[in-house]
Amino acid sequence: MTAAPAPGLHSDLPGRIMAREMAEQPAVLRRILDDGAASIRQVAREIAARAPRFVLLTARGSSDNAALYAKYLLEIRLGLPCGLASMSTTTAYGARPHLTDVLVITVSQSRGSPDLVASTRAAREAGAITLAVTNNPDSALAGVSEYHVDIMAGPERALPATKTYTASLLALYLFTEGLRDGDGAAARVLPDLADRLLARQDEVRALAARYRFAERMVITSRGYGYPTAKEAALKLMETSYIPALSYSGADLLHGPLAMVDNVSPVIAVVTDGKGGEALQPVLDRLRGRGADLFVVGPRSRVERASAGFVMPTEGVAEEVQPVLEIIPLQLLAYEVTIARGQDPDAPRALAKVTETH
Amino acid sequence: MTAAPAPGLHSDLPGRIMAREMAEQPAVLRRILDDGAASIRQVAREIAARAPRFVLLTARGSSDNAALYAKYLLEIRLGLPCGLASMSTTTAYGARPHLTDVLVITVSQSRGSPDLVASTRAAREAGAITLAVTNNPDSALAGVSEYHVDIMAGPERALPATKTYTASLLALYLFTEGLRDGDGAAARVLPDLADRLLARQDEVRALAARYRFAERMVITSRGYGYPTAKEAALKLMETSYIPALSYSGADLLHGPLAMVDNVSPVIAVVTDGKGGEALQPVLDRLRGRGADLFVVGPRSRVERASAGFVMPTEGVAEEVQPVLEIIPLQLLAYEVTIARGQDPDAPRALAKVTETH
Repeated sequence: MTAAPAPGLHSDLPGRIMAREMAEQPAVLRRILDDGAASIRQVAREIAARAPRFVLLTARGSSDNAALYAKYLLEIRLGLPCGLASMSTTTAYGARPHLTDVLVITVSQSRGSPDLVASTRAAREAGAITLAVTNNPDSALAGVSEYHVDIMAGPERALPATKTYTASLLALYLFTEGLRDGDGAAARVLPDLADRLLARQDEVRALAARYRFAERMVITSRGYGYPTAKEAALKLMETSYIPALSYSGADLLHGPLAMVDNVSPVIAVVTDGKGGEALQPVLDRLRGRGADLFVVGPRSRVERASAGFVMPTEGVAEEVQPVLEIIPLQLLAYEVTIARGQDPDAPRALAKVTETH
Repeated sequence: MTAAPAPGLHSDLPGRIMAREMAEQPAVLRRILDDGAASIRQVAREIAARAPRFVLLTARGSSDNAALYAKYLLEIRLGLPCGLASMSTTTAYGARPHLTDVLVITVSQSRGSPDLVASTRAAREAGAITLAVTNNPDSALAGVSEYHVDIMAGPERALPATKTYTASLLALYLFTEGLRDGDGAAARVLPDLADRLLARQDEVRALAARYRFAERMVITSRGYGYPTAKEAALKLMETSYIPALSYSGADLLHGPLAMVDNVSPVIAVVTDGKGGEALQPVLDRLRGRGADLFVVGPRSRVERASAGFVMPTEGVAEEVQPVLEIIPLQLLAYEVTIARGQDPDAPRALAKVTETH
């Protein structure tokens, strides 16, 4: 494999499908803000009127990381206690939890694996308010849910989810804003900033050379950025097969830190705000151990690291930064994979719609 | 490093502290059943009388894996919706969730990191019923909680938690049994079976040779065994520094499967029951890809794998098998670490009480 040319220019290049879908992200974000926000707000108002007291989020893969982002929003901005569902309790063990006053949100970037449909149906039968957040209003999952939010990302063909991930985040942000009767204005800057991030692919390509021979990676964050760390690890594993371990900064200190040394590069997702502040002591400790630390975050944090990618954070509310933070990390997964002579569009063994039961 | 002699015979051998504490597990389990069960049941009855509607579990490290086990018990056997707390929402962002009717269970093998104490105090102020499950009745964490369960494991000096983990599982099992007014009789077989497992250390030592040069591992399970998979990955990373990625069997199919090949050995924790049944299609797919599959589970499942450790499952209820399943995996982490010439008692950078804020 020779040095990678700019992706997407020739239709037979490795990764062209993933490249095209990453590039669509600003347009998808604009579409949601322009054409989807009103109906998301309407769904949120109807659900708010029913005053859910607890939220359970159900998802798998990238959508599970989007669900985790929603958990932070719901807990921090609405004071709603949340849990991520352990789906097998319903599908394998037949548990029938008591779900009165519980909002069950199922997130799926596709039509929904059978276990998602089954667990959502069971939740509705058990008295839950059910909401499906999907990329397909005609899906079985939308059909079994009382409410539905369409993430409007258009068909996604690449196996690693990219545009459906950022679309899910934005839709979930607007939904939680609607629940609290907020205006969601913080999201308006996102499409233009996403455009500017995508224009920096050459910068990411140069940085990807660092990981050409990496045998493992640790990705950490705290607060709103933690779902980004998990999603970045998943992207890297799906495309490049590099074992990428993601930890919240606090959990990293409870054990896995022993594994971090100068052969385990660390990527830190540093949101500009309280999450990034809470993460800094962990980063200082990693630097003290001589770890190679790559920061995705504001300039002041990148300057304290071994390398990094400076995020535009001026005027960007902390709670919407995750919609942007993942973009350079998607590009990184893509570029590392190309640099290794592999094809991001053809991960081994991965099916677009995974049917788990 | 020469071949490892039986541990614990000489006081200056690597891993002697961890070995001694692993060996104490049957006695600790007996102590909880004989001397602790009545007071755990009493706490459970008082909490049951207050009819909590949701449960939030708060913990870090190994205790977080014990909390996940409790989540399965509470959802499957009591129909109580549960969530694992994202602690930073309280400690970094100052969220004040509405916690009336919510039982907040904080699990800590030690005196409790400041963030656990702070988040438990905040939960109590927000109206939650608070329960601390700790190894120290005089701890700050027990002090801020309304109720307390003592796991009675005695002082734990090794950095990798072993006896406090199995003790936490048993205490949480007995607590959830008390909540549902069950008798917890399924736990009575555990101490003797734990003795029998520990007597098979030579068998584990021979199996550990397989992983002498492993650069990474994938550990998978489903249902009740999933916390065991996570805890086994943590033990391996803490002691041997092998990057060990744990996934529920269903999530493994949603992406990380691309990473599994004949250089990424897979360990599967197969509980004998519905969890193991739900996992089998995943294991068949792994075998179809030529993965090296090591099974900890009943004989019939081990026989379909590349190698394994046969668990005594006859007459052992599925919901208590996790208390036993982790033991051969603790031994494996220990033996792999010794085989690599490292000291399980001296992991790099790991402090027994990690103070995260």
